[in-house]
Amino acid sequence: MTVEHLNSGEILSQATVYNGVVNVCGLTADDMSLDAKGQTEQILAKIDNILATYGTDKSKLLMATLYLTDMGDKPGMNEAWTAWLGDLERPARACVGSTLGTADTLVEIVVSAAK
Amino acid sequence: MTVEHLNSGEILSQATVYNGVVNVCGLTADDMSLDAKGQTEQILAKIDNILATYGTDKSKLLMATLYLTDMGDKPGMNEAWTAWLGDLERPARACVGSTLGTADTLVEIVVSAAK
Amino acid sequence: MTVEHLNSGEILSQATVYNGVVNVCGLTADDMSLDAKGQTEQILAKIDNILATYGTDKSKLLMATLYLTDMGDKPGMNEAWTAWLGDLERPARACVGSTLGTADTLVEIVVSAAK
Repeated sequence: MTVEHLNSGEILSQATVYNGVVNVCGLTADDMSLDAKGQTEQILAKIDNILATYGTDKSKLLMATLYLTDMGDKPGMNEAWTAWLGDLERPARACVGSTLGTADTLVEIVVSAAK
Repeated sequence: MTVEHLNSGEILSQATVYNGVVNVCGLTADDMSLDAKGQTEQILAKIDNILATYGTDKSKLLMATLYLTDMGDKPGMNEAWTAWLGDLERPARACVGSTLGTADTLVEIVVSAAK
Repeated sequence: MTVEHLNSGEILSQATVYNGVVNVCGLTADDMSLDAKGQTEQILAKIDNILATYGTDKSKLLMATLYLTDMGDKPGMNEAWTAWLGDLERPARACVGSTLGTADTLVEIVVSAAK
C-alpha cells in the first residue's frame, strides 16, 4: 500500500493518506488580523476542503490537536469549533498552549480523519 | 468501516476508534490540588477505564504525548508513569512543556492504543 | 495483531508498530552544543535508523510534529529538514514552540511512517 500525498511542497504535504486514515498538516488561518474565532473558522474551512479531496468529511474526524498562542482564546476558538461540528459526533481532542509560527498566529489545528 | 465515538459531548469525544486503533482525548486530573505525580495517577486511571471500554488495556499503547506546565515536574510524572506500566513494554512517547487548560493543570496526556 | 516495540526501556520504546504504521518516540539530539540545524540533523539520522529497523524509510513518512524551544530556530531547522528529504514527497507536518527536556534542547521531533 502506498502513501498518498496532497500538494507536497518544499516543507510539507497538506495531507498524507495511508491505511484509510487522512493525516492533515498543522493548518493556520490566511488572515492573521482576525481574532481566534475568525482564525479558527478559516482553518476549519481548509480542513473541509482537504477532507473533501479524499471523499471524506468532518463526520469522520478521529483526533484533533488545537494549539493556541493564548489559552485565553479558548472560548472564542470553541465557539467556532462547536458551530462547525453542529450535531455531529465529536473527534477526540486536545488543546494546549504553544508558541506558533508568527506573533499574530493565534490558532493552529492538526486533525486526522477516516477516509 | 465506521468511526466509533465514546461519550461525544459539546467539545469532544473521550475517544474514537477506527481501523483497530483507539485515539484517546487529552485527559487531565479531576483534583487539581494534587501534585504532578498525583494528577498523573488520576489521568492514568482514566486511561485504564477508557481502554477497558474497548476491551483493550495499557499493554497495547502505541504512542503517548505528555504535556507538562512545568518541565520540572517530569520526575514526579515519570514516577507515576513507570509504576503504572510495571513490567509491560512501553509505548513510544514524547513529553513537552505547554500551557494547559487552567493555571493548576500540571499534566495533560494523550494516548493511542491498539484495540 | 500484536504491537511490536523497539528497545523498550524504563520510560518509553523508541518506536511501536501496529497495523502497518511505525510510531516513533520524541527524538532529541545527542550533542546539545549544536545549533538547531545540527541538532535536527542528528535527530533525522536517528529517524533513518529507526525506520530502517522495520524495512521502511523517510519516503513513507505520514506525519511529523516538530517542537522548537525558540521558533526563531525554524529556518535552521528547515534547512536540515529540506536537505534530508531531497526530492521526496513530504509528510504532513506541524511545527510549534514548546519547552523541551533540558535548557539546551532546541529541537524534538515525533514522526509516524508507513511500514
